Amino acid sequence: MSKKLITNGTIVTASEVYEGDVLIEGGKVSAIGKNLAREGAEVIDAKNHYLFPGGIDPHTHLEMPFGGTVTKDDFETGTIAAAFGGTTTIIDFCLTEKGKPLKEAIDVWHNKSKDKAVVDYSFHLMIGEINEEVLSQLPEVIEEEGITSFKVFMAYKDVFQADDETLYQTLIAAKELGALVMVHAENGDVIHYLTKKALEEGKTDPIFHALTRPPEAEGEATGRAAQLTHMADSQLYVVHVSCNEAVEKISEARRKGAEVYGETCPQYLVLDQSYMEKPDFEGAKYVWSPPLRDKSNQELLWRALKNGELQTIGSDQCSFDFNGQKDLGRGDFTKIPNGGPIIEDRFSLLYSEGVAKGRISLQKFVEVTSTNTARLFGLAPEKGTIAVGSDADIVIFNPDASRTISAKTHHMAVDYSAFEGMEVEGEIVSVLSRGDFIVKNKELTAVPGRGEFLKRQKFNTSERSEERFTVM
Amino acid sequence: MSKKLITNGTIVTASEVYEGDVLIEGGKVSAIGKNLAREGAEVIDAKNHYLFPGGIDPHTHLEMPFGGTVTKDDFETGTIAAAFGGTTTIIDFCLTEKGKPLKEAIDVWHNKSKDKAVVDYSFHLMIGEINEEVLSQLPEVIEEEGITSFKVFMAYKDVFQADDETLYQTLIAAKELGALVMVHAENGDVIHYLTKKALEEGKTDPIFHALTRPPEAEGEATGRAAQLTHMADSQLYVVHVSCNEAVEKISEARRKGAEVYGETCPQYLVLDQSYMEKPDFEGAKYVWSPPLRDKSNQELLWRALKNGELQTIGSDQCSFDFNGQKDLGRGDFTKIPNGGPIIEDRFSLLYSEGVAKGRISLQKFVEVTSTNTARLFGLAPEKGTIAVGSDADIVIFNPDASRTISAKTHHMAVDYSAFEGMEVEGEIVSVLSRGDFIVKNKELTAVPGRGEFLKRQKFNTSERSEERFTVM
Amino acid sequence: MSKKLITNGTIVTASEVYEGDVLIEGGKVSAIGKNLAREGAEVIDAKNHYLFPGGIDPHTHLEMPFGGTVTKDDFETGTIAAAFGGTTTIIDFCLTEKGKPLKEAIDVWHNKSKDKAVVDYSFHLMIGEINEEVLSQLPEVIEEEGITSFKVFMAYKDVFQADDETLYQTLIAAKELGALVMVHAENGDVIHYLTKKALEEGKTDPIFHALTRPPEAEGEATGRAAQLTHMADSQLYVVHVSCNEAVEKISEARRKGAEVYGETCPQYLVLDQSYMEKPDFEGAKYVWSPPLRDKSNQELLWRALKNGELQTIGSDQCSFDFNGQKDLGRGDFTKIPNGGPIIEDRFSLLYSEGVAKGRISLQKFVEVTSTNTARLFGLAPEKGTIAVGSDADIVIFNPDASRTISAKTHHMAVDYSAFEGMEVEGEIVSVLSRGDFIVKNKELTAVPGRGEFLKRQKFNTSERSEERFTVM
Amino acid sequence: MSKKLITNGTIVTASEVYEGDVLIEGGKVSAIGKNLAREGAEVIDAKNHYLFPGGIDPHTHLEMPFGGTVTKDDFETGTIAAAFGGTTTIIDFCLTEKGKPLKEAIDVWHNKSKDKAVVDYSFHLMIGEINEEVLSQLPEVIEEEGITSFKVFMAYKDVFQADDETLYQTLIAAKELGALVMVHAENGDVIHYLTKKALEEGKTDPIFHALTRPPEAEGEATGRAAQLTHMADSQLYVVHVSCNEAVEKISEARRKGAEVYGETCPQYLVLDQSYMEKPDFEGAKYVWSPPLRDKSNQELLWRALKNGELQTIGSDQCSFDFNGQKDLGRGDFTKIPNGGPIIEDRFSLLYSEGVAKGRISLQKFVEVTSTNTARLFGLAPEKGTIAVGSDADIVIFNPDASRTISAKTHHMAVDYSAFEGMEVEGEIVSVLSRGDFIVKNKELTAVPGRGEFLKRQKFNTSERSEERFTVM
Repeated sequence: MSKKLITNGTIVTASEVYEGDVLIEGGKVSAIGKNLAREGAEVIDAKNHYLFPGGIDPHTHLEMPFGGTVTKDDFETGTIAAAFGGTTTIIDFCLTEKGKPLKEAIDVWHNKSKDKAVVDYSFHLMIGEINEEVLSQLPEVIEEEGITSFKVFMAYKDVFQADDETLYQTLIAAKELGALVMVHAENGDVIHYLTKKALEEGKTDPIFHALTRPPEAEGEATGRAAQLTHMADSQLYVVHVSCNEAVEKISEARRKGAEVYGETCPQYLVLDQSYMEKPDFEGAKYVWSPPLRDKSNQELLWRALKNGELQTIGSDQCSFDFNGQKDLGRGDFTKIPNGGPIIEDRFSLLYSEGVAKGRISLQKFVEVTSTNTARLFGLAPEKGTIAVGSDADIVIFNPDASRTISAKTHHMAVDYSAFEGMEVEGEIVSVLSRGDFIVKNKELTAVPGRGEFLKRQKFNTSERSEERFTVM
Repeated sequence: MSKKLITNGTIVTASEVYEGDVLIEGGKVSAIGKNLAREGAEVIDAKNHYLFPGGIDPHTHLEMPFGGTVTKDDFETGTIAAAFGGTTTIIDFCLTEKGKPLKEAIDVWHNKSKDKAVVDYSFHLMIGEINEEVLSQLPEVIEEEGITSFKVFMAYKDVFQADDETLYQTLIAAKELGALVMVHAENGDVIHYLTKKALEEGKTDPIFHALTRPPEAEGEATGRAAQLTHMADSQLYVVHVSCNEAVEKISEARRKGAEVYGETCPQYLVLDQSYMEKPDFEGAKYVWSPPLRDKSNQELLWRALKNGELQTIGSDQCSFDFNGQKDLGRGDFTKIPNGGPIIEDRFSLLYSEGVAKGRISLQKFVEVTSTNTARLFGLAPEKGTIAVGSDADIVIFNPDASRTISAKTHHMAVDYSAFEGMEVEGEIVSVLSRGDFIVKNKELTAVPGRGEFLKRQKFNTSERSEERFTVM
Repeated sequence: MSKKLITNGTIVTASEVYEGDVLIEGGKVSAIGKNLAREGAEVIDAKNHYLFPGGIDPHTHLEMPFGGTVTKDDFETGTIAAAFGGTTTIIDFCLTEKGKPLKEAIDVWHNKSKDKAVVDYSFHLMIGEINEEVLSQLPEVIEEEGITSFKVFMAYKDVFQADDETLYQTLIAAKELGALVMVHAENGDVIHYLTKKALEEGKTDPIFHALTRPPEAEGEATGRAAQLTHMADSQLYVVHVSCNEAVEKISEARRKGAEVYGETCPQYLVLDQSYMEKPDFEGAKYVWSPPLRDKSNQELLWRALKNGELQTIGSDQCSFDFNGQKDLGRGDFTKIPNGGPIIEDRFSLLYSEGVAKGRISLQKFVEVTSTNTARLFGLAPEKGTIAVGSDADIVIFNPDASRTISAKTHHMAVDYSAFEGMEVEGEIVSVLSRGDFIVKNKELTAVPGRGEFLKRQKFNTSERSEERFTVM
Repeated sequence: MSKKLITNGTIVTASEVYEGDVLIEGGKVSAIGKNLAREGAEVIDAKNHYLFPGGIDPHTHLEMPFGGTVTKDDFETGTIAAAFGGTTTIIDFCLTEKGKPLKEAIDVWHNKSKDKAVVDYSFHLMIGEINEEVLSQLPEVIEEEGITSFKVFMAYKDVFQADDETLYQTLIAAKELGALVMVHAENGDVIHYLTKKALEEGKTDPIFHALTRPPEAEGEATGRAAQLTHMADSQLYVVHVSCNEAVEKISEARRKGAEVYGETCPQYLVLDQSYMEKPDFEGAKYVWSPPLRDKSNQELLWRALKNGELQTIGSDQCSFDFNGQKDLGRGDFTKIPNGGPIIEDRFSLLYSEGVAKGRISLQKFVEVTSTNTARLFGLAPEKGTIAVGSDADIVIFNPDASRTISAKTHHMAVDYSAFEGMEVEGEIVSVLSRGDFIVKNKELTAVPGRGEFLKRQKFNTSERSEERFTVM
């Protein structure tokens, strides 16, 4: 880790935009200043470029089994794509199985990642059941593994779905142990019925994936999770908020004093339900859960980000080839693997659609793509900002360039892009992770395995105000 | 302006808390780093101290005539007290008279301040009427004076109160010219009636000041101003929000997409209406408009700050002696001059009651006492943060000390304190303004007149996202 | 007043639908039963017909001066049209002038009506100012004239508009005296500005009447009036609610415990703003204040009626000829007399669009066209129902017929209909007022002057629950 | 069924209060009038008495097994008590068991009731599961049994509780078949956990029944059920609403256009949670589910009745002796049988606390104790009003008397009253059911078995507006 000096860049944090030189030593930012001394340092000229804190993606599924297949991107291709996309840290979901030791599941995930990742990473732990045995293992998960966030599914009945008692107990346990509970908030029971009904009626096209998962089902589950959180006096993070119905519930809970946060994803900000009606089964490319929504939700989600009612942007990266995977669902939309390739474009899409189009400020962009995630998930102050003492995870970004998204050029392992042909303002030129170039002048310069597993700090409610951004 | 190096402090911004040395050259922060070179610099050891951006007080009334008397603190005593209180910038309200040139009023204010201020300052301009003549003067006010915020009163019938058409036209003009409209939001008509009625019924004690200005009257006016702002597609800043009724209206307007911001004051967070019932006319010390409210509002105001529904803290400094001024209202509460001495304690009270008691984070403290104000009122990036290139306005703060508020020791020119005897956590040790010590080891080191008038940038809605914190 | 027996009709009240004979003696219903004895009675067979309580129109402007002209319908043509339209009671607005005795204004209205009306009538009294003199006259207005409702205008700046202090004082007085305060709720100040601006910009067509009176201006004023009512612990009735913005404010105030009621009109349920864009100045026919709104408001207004958030239907009858009156506004929409001819179609439109289209029940139809108005305005139990002891004000209605609305056939004195060519389900066959046929088999059988002035009971808040439908 | 004439009473319906004679022939009201002919009729003088429509209690549990015991009142003692209490119709809950034919359960209920009831009765049918077999039986339940309301439990985990898919399917089926879905809305999962936790911690007193079933758990479930109803475009009736949290959800759903109704019970209007802390295990007398709430809820429930946000009053009659039944729960609150004896006092309590104390009008009293229930559950127009053609179910009520509630004098078979010693205004003198006195001058005059089973009409959404009170 050599000494580096990035000169004349425009540094952006969640609260400032200013010009300065950034000195990097030992993988960390050691100084920021005007005209810092250059001796002994590799000098990178960043004039007319933004220096953003490396993106943190709180929501990825790499090498994840789903419905008899496995996501196409693993920790190697996935994190390489992340790196190209300006993301220097990811937090992936570690799936568990009922009745099996949690440690076993975590080890599986360590094995998937350890020699492959080019960026730093951590895990969230799925909680599928709560009993004495599970409870007895949680302290170790937190203290020794540094895994301080638990995921509960309110949907996928008969697969991942947990009942309300499990969710409530997880919230209670998280409060006591210092973890943040995450929910996939859709009413799985209603969806189960609607799905069965649709198939019985011969409604098998991709669009029925959306029509059997209405926004009201997401709003209901979001409100329920928020209410349970309030009752438990615990803390909640709602993943992939897709619609106004859910935003309203989060916002209402916060006003009533509940500790509830929300994440949305670029797909919900940029795409809409009409994509799922594309002919020739192409709609399958746009099958996410929750599904894409009516276009009117887009501006409301942007407003919620701006107003601080939603706090973060995840990618929900979960990639499947169109040919050979997505097409398992021809003739039966329930067999279409859910999710899409997006880890590489999360950062760009936010900048281009958000900052360049005047919907959010540069600072808000940094806040939602990096800073807030670091603070909510126990990664600050090492991650999430460009400041003295923090890890030198930096994106050098040219706002005057633009690029066209395409599966032909992206680095994800899949055969399509949901944003094919879309032009985005700005271009990621180089990316540093802990002071190392992992992308330099748009070329990969990292080797798989260099990414480190991050043990995260607790979400400590008794010291809430000191340890993190209470609300942004 | 000598070179200075503040070493080992814990730097706090609106988004970070980290340790580092701060180098100051030419009145500005020139570098922040670990172990910066000390040569040629005056070294100040700040180990175990916080370094906060100098406070910005968006709401002061210095040497202001009111009801036949004049506030006790002028720009000299007022800004000295501000300096001791960690505030390095104030924005004072310049009163205007109908029919007179705006420039005349501004010159009066320049004369009040220019040889007296020890901290930097700017003015908001009161708008009492809108007509062709007023409209023709506004561009100059903005372009040449750099006064980019206008204040409209919805209360004080027959004195300052403007009608809705005036407010609406001010909003329209502000939008076109790039200014932020501020309102004192209370329904002056209802208050006028209730006040008259109370006096007729012989209700003359200070507590009737509160009872004739109910929170519903503030809620109503706040909602009305927000609605007019939404209609005008303009921008609004509600000063001295005192109660939940008003917070709800601001919050609702923001969710509907209106550009509305709110300020509260330490008195509403710390004191309550019961103080106004103190015997021997002592209640008069607690006469503010809006009045102190029922205690239940306090936690709701803290929550609104935490959740980002209110953005700033003003002092509403408006000081009158108890003996000789406040007592003009013996036997008639309407003759009690409204307001109190608080410019010196705004910062301390927020830290002690907010951060030390776990209600808000360190970052949020900086955000609401400094950063947001800088961004909303066109003072960023020079003011409002500790960052390379910004003015070296820095408070060196010892969190391990404490002090007791008292009129005996405060630097305001008045004979009482509304917080007499209250102990606050933390102590302001030294304060720098543009790199100069103005308070050093708790001694004044500044001479009156050193404070500079700040021409502020426009509130430019067309470039909203680039130029300021859209929402915090 | 001969004895009459209406046999076999289907009687509809606000809570029942049932078959029975109705015996009328002395102008009142003396019995309802199965197979009542026929001797001595004129027998009217109403098989397959509905018997509805005579409609009560709480909102008419007959022979009213407005903008240099006078409404076309006076108490003769207006009440004849009302009779044909199933309305047996009207309450007209008595305009007052500042500085003149209220009695003088009331006498003017008595003179307009006394030898002309064919249906019963009462007056609401406009309050334009409140001072000692006005206050001293109010008890007589209530006790001797039986006028127990006051109207305050929040719009028509410089003409009718009262300030908030006047409204608040009226609410206080009404509470003490037992009257109901009515408001025209639009923010006249904003409208004044927008109107002036539009004319300056050459925007003179009828549609600009709507565009300069946005729904937000109505919502704001409605919320303000409701809030003032809550503060005064008084009672409010919002006339001609046209949009969701206003409904929300009424609904919110009621949930918070305020005594607030709302009226809408058929034009807002059936027509929409697009009518105002008709070519050849025809848009002027559709100029009401508040203006017609976007079509989306219609279903929300119906829902509010169904859910009991709005309680009554007024016509806001205020008729002007298209030729010679409406066309005063060619080239300047502000000179178009506001209002339209609708007294004759209020009842029919509600039945056809409400009941026949399944939006409201028969009972709800009676409730909003008659019963609630009787109870709110002190006319129950004589008016507003078909019950033993009540006035025999009965509409014999054939649901199996239909008719086409047209200026060619209507009985109002104007040269156009806003509903020209619209077919409505159901037909009013005969109408009785106090036991007399005033319309019999679709022919007028009443002579002008038979209508009686009704002194109304107080709105007595201390006996609220006993004296009227608290909420419907 | 002899001819009867009740003279000079004050007849009260949901919309009128007026004086008249009521003639009864063939068990039905045949005429209402002034001075009706007396020949051949038994004349009952009701001067200075109110004549109310017989009460309809939509919520009783007679001879119901619960937790190893059986409710003390069966259809004989229960309906005798109902008769004394002014209730002439009850609808009891028929419990079902999974896997068993519905008809079998219904027959059990027919057997419980047929020779015992003294008032008319019907059944609601519990739905514990939905599958092809259950669905195939529902048409017969509706068409042949005239049971047009289904009850789903969201609480009592592992006993009655159904999952959301069952509730949703029931809503869908009800919509298609014309039934109304009723829910016990509490989140059984959360309660299950809290209960277990409390017992583990040795918290066994009756008060912990309340503390383990917080109002938020009711609010959550109510909101969920309302949302599912909205999604299914079906109709919902929430039983025993106890708190503001639930009212808000019902009210919000209605404003959004959902067909949702709510019932509350006298215990929630009159008693509060503090009763559950009575010493010597007496708190067990006050164990209902949902539990009694904080006193602040009472006025909010009254307001919701007044404003039409709640529509009916049920008793939730479910009586157990204190000695021998309630005391099964000594040392373990979960073993206290839930419920109380109240069928006899429902009507009186509403009158005394509602009408006599000025909270609701006489008409609203009739609406919520009788009329709305008749209309929602397919019993109108025979039941729910005093009108020609309706069943002569009439309560003769003396508003000038009063009585003291006591177990010593009540007719329920239990050894305590939850309202022991409470004085209520007004006294039920006589009660007629289909023209027969069942209580005459406070003496029972009916024989068990005279009560008839009522087949009810469908809740037909396609004809909603014609067939019932859409909203009251």
